[in-house]
Amino acid sequence: MSRPNPVDATALPLPIFQKLANRRIILASASPRRKDILATMGLHPEVVPSTFAEDLPHSRFAGNLADYPISTGAEKAMEVYERLVKENERDPPDLVISADTVVIFPPEKDTAEGGSAHGEVSEVLEKPINKDDQAKVLGLMAGRNCEVITGVTIVYPSIEAPGFKVHSISCSTLVQFYDNSNEVIQAYVDSGEGLDRAGGFAIQGLGGILIERIDGNYDNCVGFPSAPFWRWMAELDEDGVFDEAWQ
Amino acid sequence: MSRPNPVDATALPLPIFQKLANRRIILASASPRRKDILATMGLHPEVVPSTFAEDLPHSRFAGNLADYPISTGAEKAMEVYERLVKENERDPPDLVISADTVVIFPPEKDTAEGGSAHGEVSEVLEKPINKDDQAKVLGLMAGRNCEVITGVTIVYPSIEAPGFKVHSISCSTLVQFYDNSNEVIQAYVDSGEGLDRAGGFAIQGLGGILIERIDGNYDNCVGFPSAPFWRWMAELDEDGVFDEAWQ
Repeated sequence: MSRPNPVDATALPLPIFQKLANRRIILASASPRRKDILATMGLHPEVVPSTFAEDLPHSRFAGNLADYPISTGAEKAMEVYERLVKENERDPPDLVISADTVVIFPPEKDTAEGGSAHGEVSEVLEKPINKDDQAKVLGLMAGRNCEVITGVTIVYPSIEAPGFKVHSISCSTLVQFYDNSNEVIQAYVDSGEGLDRAGGFAIQGLGGILIERIDGNYDNCVGFPSAPFWRWMAELDEDGVFDEAWQ
Repeated sequence: MSRPNPVDATALPLPIFQKLANRRIILASASPRRKDILATMGLHPEVVPSTFAEDLPHSRFAGNLADYPISTGAEKAMEVYERLVKENERDPPDLVISADTVVIFPPEKDTAEGGSAHGEVSEVLEKPINKDDQAKVLGLMAGRNCEVITGVTIVYPSIEAPGFKVHSISCSTLVQFYDNSNEVIQAYVDSGEGLDRAGGFAIQGLGGILIERIDGNYDNCVGFPSAPFWRWMAELDEDGVFDEAWQ
């Protein structure tokens, strides 16, 4: 098989990027933002969106909502890996990367006993149903924090059953909103941005004007925790995790 | 005079953007990053870089280094405003925006009495002299915080002497580096990025891989504190600051 090298010449000459050179790498997400974030570090995976329906019941994760995006992301990555192996078992992916980003409001640390929002219930915010719903959610978050969590899963081949291995991490960033007025929120909602985003805002777009500060990794808020991901990949590689798969 | 409207159709329909429509707005900085950050909010100023030499003595700001970028930025904005008025006094700018970004290491709050780096001296980091200097500075910051401060100044016309008014703000963001190894730092330095940046790194580029998290505004680290700037402009406008200039 001949395919373009997914690692371009701008990638830093570190062992993890050298090992990924000329391999078949899949991004199991249609998000152009995730593609861009990976491209910034010189990685250009094939894009194969998952068909897994994002409908795990939130109730299963009560008290530990941070596990929700990991579970969803893992299902996506495994679905894509198994589908591609079925399509052509002589050309299995060397690595499938998936990600799922959710917004939790109020942050779970605040609703825990002793937290500033004790008595409230933390919820996973989905994409708004419509503009009224978006304005309502942005109004609730005005002057407060929400937590953006991205779960990232990798799947790679193994000789052991079921034929692949799975690892996941998650990354959390607190996002502090200004005490935005109804006028500002309505102007943002009217722009049409954010309706397709969990929590109803895009920090990298016009939505940036709503946000005072973050505490954590920025790329994570956009949809993929780039630096934490690469550091984790380098550690897995140093531990020999990929030795069998990428001989 | 006919010129393109600097406020495009994507700008939020808020009073401050409506007041800037069809005015002569100048960005006194050659930085493409600052231009991009303003464009994200729908503003496209004329770019007229300042000729002011950035050589104010750091010693004048000892103990309050955060004032350094404000002073430099104010000199830039006034130099450009006065030059453009001289060039054509019938078409003075309605607004000149300047910005100056510096990196302070260690952060002044850490070197103050009781801080985690008490005994060390906070310094303003300039652009590295060469790659060896860049590697040395990035090595010193590994596993630690630096402080990125951008000073923003606006200048606009006034009937009072000297014919213009000046306002400034500054914004500070803490940047936490991973405990980067010499190998990672050398790979980054070899990429050629960051040599033209204060502190020797670009958070929005390959340099992002060196950084674990930030505490503060992200755009501020890139070179212009967008949301704080627009919120400040809206407040000045509500206070009537621009009433005389933009009748």
